[in-house]
Amino acid sequence: MIDRSHGGNIWKYPKSSRRIIVDFSVNTNLLGMAQKIKNSIVRNVSKIGYYPDPESKYLKNSLAKLHRLSSHNFLVGNGSIELIHLIPRALKAKVVLVPIPTFSEYEFAVRANNAKCLFVKSTEKNNFKIDISRLMQHIPKADLVFLCNPNNPTGSALERQEILSLLKTCKKCNVTLVIDEAFMDFVDQKNRIAMDVESAKTKNLLVLRSLTKFFVLPGIRIGYVIGHKDTINKLARHTYPWNVNTIAQIIAQEAVNDKEYIARTQSIIPAEKRYLYDNLNKIRGVRVYPSSANFFLCKLKDVRIKNAANLSEKLIERGILIRNCDNFRGLNDRFFRIAVKNREANIKLISALRDILE
Amino acid sequence: MIDRSHGGNIWKYPKSSRRIIVDFSVNTNLLGMAQKIKNSIVRNVSKIGYYPDPESKYLKNSLAKLHRLSSHNFLVGNGSIELIHLIPRALKAKVVLVPIPTFSEYEFAVRANNAKCLFVKSTEKNNFKIDISRLMQHIPKADLVFLCNPNNPTGSALERQEILSLLKTCKKCNVTLVIDEAFMDFVDQKNRIAMDVESAKTKNLLVLRSLTKFFVLPGIRIGYVIGHKDTINKLARHTYPWNVNTIAQIIAQEAVNDKEYIARTQSIIPAEKRYLYDNLNKIRGVRVYPSSANFFLCKLKDVRIKNAANLSEKLIERGILIRNCDNFRGLNDRFFRIAVKNREANIKLISALRDILE
Repeated sequence: MIDRSHGGNIWKYPKSSRRIIVDFSVNTNLLGMAQKIKNSIVRNVSKIGYYPDPESKYLKNSLAKLHRLSSHNFLVGNGSIELIHLIPRALKAKVVLVPIPTFSEYEFAVRANNAKCLFVKSTEKNNFKIDISRLMQHIPKADLVFLCNPNNPTGSALERQEILSLLKTCKKCNVTLVIDEAFMDFVDQKNRIAMDVESAKTKNLLVLRSLTKFFVLPGIRIGYVIGHKDTINKLARHTYPWNVNTIAQIIAQEAVNDKEYIARTQSIIPAEKRYLYDNLNKIRGVRVYPSSANFFLCKLKDVRIKNAANLSEKLIERGILIRNCDNFRGLNDRFFRIAVKNREANIKLISALRDILE
Repeated sequence: MIDRSHGGNIWKYPKSSRRIIVDFSVNTNLLGMAQKIKNSIVRNVSKIGYYPDPESKYLKNSLAKLHRLSSHNFLVGNGSIELIHLIPRALKAKVVLVPIPTFSEYEFAVRANNAKCLFVKSTEKNNFKIDISRLMQHIPKADLVFLCNPNNPTGSALERQEILSLLKTCKKCNVTLVIDEAFMDFVDQKNRIAMDVESAKTKNLLVLRSLTKFFVLPGIRIGYVIGHKDTINKLARHTYPWNVNTIAQIIAQEAVNDKEYIARTQSIIPAEKRYLYDNLNKIRGVRVYPSSANFFLCKLKDVRIKNAANLSEKLIERGILIRNCDNFRGLNDRFFRIAVKNREANIKLISALRDILE
């Protein structure tokens, strides 16, 4: 039995304990859901009595405006995870290249379609940065590549030149490159290498985006894929009507236009990231890896603690959830992931870790 | 280009006209969404900030209680339409038997999986009732059957003995029978032939249920399939985490336990159905077919009106939407479908039809 669990699953804890939990296991924006969005849902409750726009046409128009592309470059999904499962199926992939450690659902999506995964492992000594030249060597054997940039759970990001080389090799070998940019909006502006515009021009490049993480909407399910019109059409043939619910369609359009929330997030995160990184670094029992995203991969160095599961248990007793990474292929039972939260929560975590490890 | 449109699509009309529309094209409960449900959504808005229960375990427990079965007999979907598309894929169906006219997504689901449909047509002179003995003759050629009971858009229902004979033949031929009971809750108690309990015991029987129609929740996407544990497990391997959103999970549990709303619906519908049927029957230009569900299939007899599309246009001018059935395989351009609404709306429709046709 494979452990397919993810972060952010408050449902596995008893109801009585849910209130006190500070959830570092979920990689969402530390600001929480915007009040504007909550108000909009309340205002639009009656719309649940109507079928959604069957193919999310209105939302696609909004996304097109946002990315300065055309609405035919978009397909909207019931969370980007629906699209992760749809892409290998629609493109009839047989062998899929997956650099690991990474988000585990790429593997599950591939296997549900009876296709094979080819894993290329990043090394700890290289801070788990994806080795592009090694990855490229394997491309001729594959027909699809899943690349998470910045990568979950490692936080490592690729440079423009690396992505372009990879894309060039993919083109030559007729391989589709899928870049999952779920955490791209959290990257500092100067290091943000988004491939949205490129994907609209390139038949074998797809870019996945999620509104879950940045706008804190995991409960309502909304993600999308950007690509060339022909590739998007191929994918669309495998969807069903009304896959995106009415509330998701309405609030997604409001969220992406909330310039104030976007700016506030991008101004607050660097300081909190820096604070968390510096303080995690000072704890002798923990190794923290550099990250371009809003979370950190950590390794438990303190040998007195059996493993990350054990550390998680000790933190739960203190009302803190972290993401034990022992079910990530390519990591072992000493790794865990921590999301950047607000100062108060970050202080609580640092102090609890110190308590346990020092 | 196939016309894949469905009823209830208010989004294709300009915003300015949406307010005045009485929508007879959508087959939902005439009571509208319960106020209790609206209040519950408002109360739970903040839960959108949390990931849903990944496999809808809590909801499955509620459904198990409701149907007096076990939670392992359930799989919950992003609307039952997600499950309609999932079933032929997960069961690797090659040839699927579909009695027509019926809900068009069975065909689209089959084709998206590169499988073939075998259509068995019901005849107009038999009020479009499915001819079970003809259907059974074709079962040896198929590996899956999609049966909508009561059927959309005809409203015709099968008797227990007919379903059991069909199931027996399916078992003998190792064919899976999928019964879509989306409208079963609208059937009079004494004629309600639900196969939920049977499906839990029978590996080759699946029963689809939707909360959309009865509880008027089309915008939030919630449906489920009931079956034998082994068959459900086979289907579950092809789903992805969080396919059912948090709000859908919460309100579904409340809806199915709202005894007062259920009773009120079941007491009000027979009278409104009778009223609508009798009055439609009195209009010379229309033939109305008997129905076990909360809608009526009608045929335009008046030759002065070109077709149902033309009639629809004339009704839209009066703020009334009906479902033009010309894109249902097995019907022609003279058929349309009307949902049973409340008295005020029904009067409005009857008077508009009289106006146009008499």
